[in-house]
Amino acid sequence: MNLSGTICINGQGHLEIGKCDVVELAKTYGTPLYVLDEDGIRQKCREYLDAFRSYYPRYKVLYAGKAFSTMAIFRLVEQEGLGIDVVSGGELYTALAANFSPKNIYFHGNNKSMEELNFALSAGVGQIVVDNPYELETLAQLVEGRKKRVDILLRLTPGIETHTHHYIQTGQLDSKFGISLAGGAALAAVKQALKYRRLKLRGIHCHIGSQVHNSESFALAARRMVEFLAQIREETGRQLPELNLGGGLGIAYAKEDNPEPIALYIRRITEAVKAACSEEDINLPTLVVEPGRSLVGEAGVAIYRVGAIKEIEGIRIYVSVDGGMADNPRPALYDAKYKAILANKAARSPVQKYTIAGKCCESGDILIKDAHLPPVEAGDLIAVPSSGAYQYAMASNYNRLPRPAVVMASQGRAEVIIRRETYNDLVRYDRIPSSWGEKESLSLVM
Amino acid sequence: MNLSGTICINGQGHLEIGKCDVVELAKTYGTPLYVLDEDGIRQKCREYLDAFRSYYPRYKVLYAGKAFSTMAIFRLVEQEGLGIDVVSGGELYTALAANFSPKNIYFHGNNKSMEELNFALSAGVGQIVVDNPYELETLAQLVEGRKKRVDILLRLTPGIETHTHHYIQTGQLDSKFGISLAGGAALAAVKQALKYRRLKLRGIHCHIGSQVHNSESFALAARRMVEFLAQIREETGRQLPELNLGGGLGIAYAKEDNPEPIALYIRRITEAVKAACSEEDINLPTLVVEPGRSLVGEAGVAIYRVGAIKEIEGIRIYVSVDGGMADNPRPALYDAKYKAILANKAARSPVQKYTIAGKCCESGDILIKDAHLPPVEAGDLIAVPSSGAYQYAMASNYNRLPRPAVVMASQGRAEVIIRRETYNDLVRYDRIPSSWGEKESLSLVM
Repeated sequence: MNLSGTICINGQGHLEIGKCDVVELAKTYGTPLYVLDEDGIRQKCREYLDAFRSYYPRYKVLYAGKAFSTMAIFRLVEQEGLGIDVVSGGELYTALAANFSPKNIYFHGNNKSMEELNFALSAGVGQIVVDNPYELETLAQLVEGRKKRVDILLRLTPGIETHTHHYIQTGQLDSKFGISLAGGAALAAVKQALKYRRLKLRGIHCHIGSQVHNSESFALAARRMVEFLAQIREETGRQLPELNLGGGLGIAYAKEDNPEPIALYIRRITEAVKAACSEEDINLPTLVVEPGRSLVGEAGVAIYRVGAIKEIEGIRIYVSVDGGMADNPRPALYDAKYKAILANKAARSPVQKYTIAGKCCESGDILIKDAHLPPVEAGDLIAVPSSGAYQYAMASNYNRLPRPAVVMASQGRAEVIIRRETYNDLVRYDRIPSSWGEKESLSLVM
Repeated sequence: MNLSGTICINGQGHLEIGKCDVVELAKTYGTPLYVLDEDGIRQKCREYLDAFRSYYPRYKVLYAGKAFSTMAIFRLVEQEGLGIDVVSGGELYTALAANFSPKNIYFHGNNKSMEELNFALSAGVGQIVVDNPYELETLAQLVEGRKKRVDILLRLTPGIETHTHHYIQTGQLDSKFGISLAGGAALAAVKQALKYRRLKLRGIHCHIGSQVHNSESFALAARRMVEFLAQIREETGRQLPELNLGGGLGIAYAKEDNPEPIALYIRRITEAVKAACSEEDINLPTLVVEPGRSLVGEAGVAIYRVGAIKEIEGIRIYVSVDGGMADNPRPALYDAKYKAILANKAARSPVQKYTIAGKCCESGDILIKDAHLPPVEAGDLIAVPSSGAYQYAMASNYNRLPRPAVVMASQGRAEVIIRRETYNDLVRYDRIPSSWGEKESLSLVM
């Protein structure tokens, strides 16, 4: 079992994260519980920065907040020297609530509302990544009434197909995102952007997809983008100073996943950019990447308590846990594969295949189809590694399940970074129409 | 366009729900907005009860809360004389917060926790639908310490494959739910249940799947369940008084959907039960059904505001709206098909195919692939009918999008039944570890 960061099996044969015993964490904080390996995230941030330091002169690393948007993670990546990218007013609000420096925030999204654009302008975000001509025009109008200029990038689709789930493949021509390099749309948008005196076009952006395992497509995208920078210079006389290649590096969920190491990925894209710039005879732009999953994914572990176990003779053994598609919709959404560890018996050998079923009243709520585990009993703890990205961020209250608590563990200390929802939180927004009159009150029994 | 209940196009050419103009509702309450047709839901409740009244002597209709769990809908169905079924402590809490009579609540779930079972017992829920032998034993132990007996049903899997998405097909042998009729597991569980003096086995339950369009499978399940009631009588001398056939009747999402009318569905299953009881010579049991989607699905309409529109020459036109997979994950989860109406130009003829893209930073966030609409402009309102079930209930804060408001409309009056989340709600549970110390405070700018 390949465990990341400080995640390991301790002397008691228990899973351990940040020197905290997972069995103890589950007792203290309850289940389902998400545990983040603080040092593991810091380590990944440093791998990005160290690799850039070795290979390239001017760079920025932005944490793609949508992977797991919460105040503590935003604070942590800022401590490590990263910026962030946000994709909505809600993410921007979260970052500002964590006192994140606005100038290090990039604002993304294929359909930013007027309200969100105004919010971003008022907050003084560093850059707005403009997705389409409609947004460019809207933004130009909004900025006209303000004193300050705003830095923008244009999001482009370089027409690259990556090998990943089609839901998270974003760089191809037929995409809801960005402006196509093909057919001259991107060049027209660049020329248009340069006309607005209050918009300062800093550069271009692309994002070819998520959970991509090797840098070949990234290098290809980098080359196309540099060629386009050269074309812009030729057509307009301007060399734009920034090239943002987005995110997308994958992580290992299951055994068969074998993503490229961060350092190698950075080396390959910087090499591609340097080579292309040299061929096109343009200055090296500031290079920006936006990792999300590869920073926080492997640092997160979901912990569930086993309840009912049911063997269907000759077919399978279902092990039901106290969470599922409500806190992790990825298996249902993307047919995502995970591995499992019996956290309280982590040193024992797997002897049996189990199907890990979630708690939701829906057959699709199966977390893992074939988990190899030691003998499982009710009360055991199932740990699912690589749960730090796109799980809590996508969590719902389906079946009115309260969303789990999230703790950050480091050096033997754990702290809650998202508190568990209560039943009362679930009805916080519910109202009964006043016109229906009163029903005699019953007291709530717990 | 086939619209349900009071939903229609008014004299201004606007979509209207409960005699409320959707264009006005969007102005007043903002978008995205979910609008429920109160009279439409009441009408569906009455169709169920009226059909039973015509065809069968003893019956109960339970609203399957998981379709849309919120206090107002629970109150409404109680006013109409329905019970409810809940699938978690959170749903039970919601029902009790709406003062729902506990005796009319059935408690479902494949993995009820000890805490949830205790909650249900303390609240005095009418029946616990026991899913598996582990739960039966756990419940028997919990009840032993209490003075009162508790009514239970056993959930069985009759081994019937329905024609629906495999995620929501639940009656087949290989299911995480229930106890199999095949192989004697169900009979053993019945005998075991009859041994516990504080558990009163009232009957048996099955649920063969969701969004099922004709009653053939339901009738087949009914027959198998009656045969099993006869077998129980033969083996134990007891005739159990209740037969619960679950829910599952489908609704129309798109043109090609053609679900059976409620009255016909009830007629067919009651006929199947009566015929089987006559053949097996047993008394007619109290018949229970648990509709969810067919009560609230067609009564709900999601309203979105159009933002960016992007044409990719020769490929498609993307129309981006201000909601998407965060409030409606069904297209991404089940490849669910919907139709759309331009709510502010509802009387105009469709002239063009559009792809309705959601706001989330994810290519999979496409609400409708080929919507036929009149010419769409930024600022228009896209209405998506049949949005009352399994949408808000499954909504997340992905990309930190606030969940929409929900209003109930009737007779020209609209009332908020779920208030819109604010940005501040999104960070309500977030904490920054105290051990990290303070960062200089910045004021939040909106």
